Amino acid sequence: MGKYIFGIDVGGTSVKFGLFCEEGSLLEKWEIPTQTEENGKWILPDVAEAILGKWKERGLRKEEIIGVGVGVPGPVSRTGEVPAAVNLHWGYKDVAGELEQALGLKVKVGNDANVAALGEMWAGGGKGAENLIMVTLGTGVGGGIIVDGKIVTGAHGAGGEIGHAILEPGEAEPCNCGNHGCLEQMASATGIARLAGRRLAADSAPSVLRGERVTAKAVFDAYKAGDSVAAEIVEQFADYLGRAMAVYACVTDPEVFVIGGGVSKAGKVLIEVVEKYYMKYAFPACRAARLVLATLGNEAGIYGAAKLVMED
Amino acid sequence: MGKYIFGIDVGGTSVKFGLFCEEGSLLEKWEIPTQTEENGKWILPDVAEAILGKWKERGLRKEEIIGVGVGVPGPVSRTGEVPAAVNLHWGYKDVAGELEQALGLKVKVGNDANVAALGEMWAGGGKGAENLIMVTLGTGVGGGIIVDGKIVTGAHGAGGEIGHAILEPGEAEPCNCGNHGCLEQMASATGIARLAGRRLAADSAPSVLRGERVTAKAVFDAYKAGDSVAAEIVEQFADYLGRAMAVYACVTDPEVFVIGGGVSKAGKVLIEVVEKYYMKYAFPACRAARLVLATLGNEAGIYGAAKLVMED
Repeated sequence: MGKYIFGIDVGGTSVKFGLFCEEGSLLEKWEIPTQTEENGKWILPDVAEAILGKWKERGLRKEEIIGVGVGVPGPVSRTGEVPAAVNLHWGYKDVAGELEQALGLKVKVGNDANVAALGEMWAGGGKGAENLIMVTLGTGVGGGIIVDGKIVTGAHGAGGEIGHAILEPGEAEPCNCGNHGCLEQMASATGIARLAGRRLAADSAPSVLRGERVTAKAVFDAYKAGDSVAAEIVEQFADYLGRAMAVYACVTDPEVFVIGGGVSKAGKVLIEVVEKYYMKYAFPACRAARLVLATLGNEAGIYGAAKLVMED
Repeated sequence: MGKYIFGIDVGGTSVKFGLFCEEGSLLEKWEIPTQTEENGKWILPDVAEAILGKWKERGLRKEEIIGVGVGVPGPVSRTGEVPAAVNLHWGYKDVAGELEQALGLKVKVGNDANVAALGEMWAGGGKGAENLIMVTLGTGVGGGIIVDGKIVTGAHGAGGEIGHAILEPGEAEPCNCGNHGCLEQMASATGIARLAGRRLAADSAPSVLRGERVTAKAVFDAYKAGDSVAAEIVEQFADYLGRAMAVYACVTDPEVFVIGGGVSKAGKVLIEVVEKYYMKYAFPACRAARLVLATLGNEAGIYGAAKLVMED
């Protein structure tokens, strides 16, 4: 008789749920809206209710359920407490404690970016690797570090905050974190648009990017279509990202880098151009690392949350 | 009845031995010359003989000995094999296998820089921390990453090769690794001397450093004596090192950085100036990390090697 795990990804607009069997198959997934009203006080009760509902609906016995894994957008302590999570309107919240009390099940909690990395390791682009770095290129740049199959949480919950590696200390504009010249300012979707804006303003070289609102997607589309200004922007982005990844590699020396997030929808060309710069900058032994695309998309969080429960 | 551990640090000129009790006291230490002749074929037999001699001399019973830990200057596989170690004139060597066969004891092997980091965690500047980054500023810049009390070896034995983080991709001179602009080129003893040479050549500002052979020690001595050119060099070094450490921090988010190696003999002033730049560049949550000096000096290797045996 197989056992079951609930994997949950709490986001600012919706909470995603997955019911997994312990071999890793996703049996069913669903989502509910995230109620951030009243400092998000209903989020965990809503999560508990959804789990209890599915538990009853499926007629599962308690001993068949291994536990519940949860990814949240914020730092998480070893004991599953969250000091604050801005997107959920949370101050301090004992996520593991509250859900354990409501459900009577083992609950494990992790930061959403770290949990997504674990998901990609378990069932996605990094399948089979035990040492992995995930780089998520979205509105910001997030990440997750896996060493020997386990998430590196860090002493202050900032393990994997790789978007905040400073590459250009002389950068005038501040990053969201308050520092200057972070990778996030060059390699996130907004960062790429920013690089593009600067490049386009620098001269009047012809480009299909002129005249439209420049997004990271537009830059990659123009790059694929052979636009030479877009190519310069993409090379600049890839130079920054490849160099940052080379620095991370000399810290934990991963077997594989998994690149995800909205920007990664550019696909294989993104891997190719980033790999060129990674190989240029990496310490020789680290050049054996592979660069791959994330494959789980929005489901990485629920997969990783389920895996979190199986970790110990 | 207490148990015993042998901690061994195999260097290019001498092999250091320590006999520890499991609580961590160093009962006795000694060393023998490293015989690198004939591709270093006598090194491991010499090590085994020295251990067997001490074992007999002390009248230890086999069941009283937990095992033997060994640090070697080169990459080490999970199974204790060394693909090559240039300073020992070794090609492939099954260090764990050879010593286990000769001694009939459990043998654990690690890279010397990583093992030193473990030693500083166990009994040195990082005592009490489970998440630590050691930065060794010697002829080169080495390092060791500890996550949850364990060494991060990496997928290709390059975990902790933090001296090869590229900070100045436009640097014209190559690093020993073949890349350009690695931290090692700015923060090692030779790197600091190099920064000093450049600064002194840039103009004719008066400095006590002029006219003598410029070493890292001379730079720090002049800095302590109030020399303003030396201060510029030290600030430049600290800016690079502090920025590099801030990048490492956003990967594994350590509780403490332990700074060791010959350059660290400059003492407290070194910590103060590096901390200034680390705080400037670090991701906010990572600013809670402490910077401390290594305290075990040349004994970090034997302590860490002993701890390696106790790890599992």
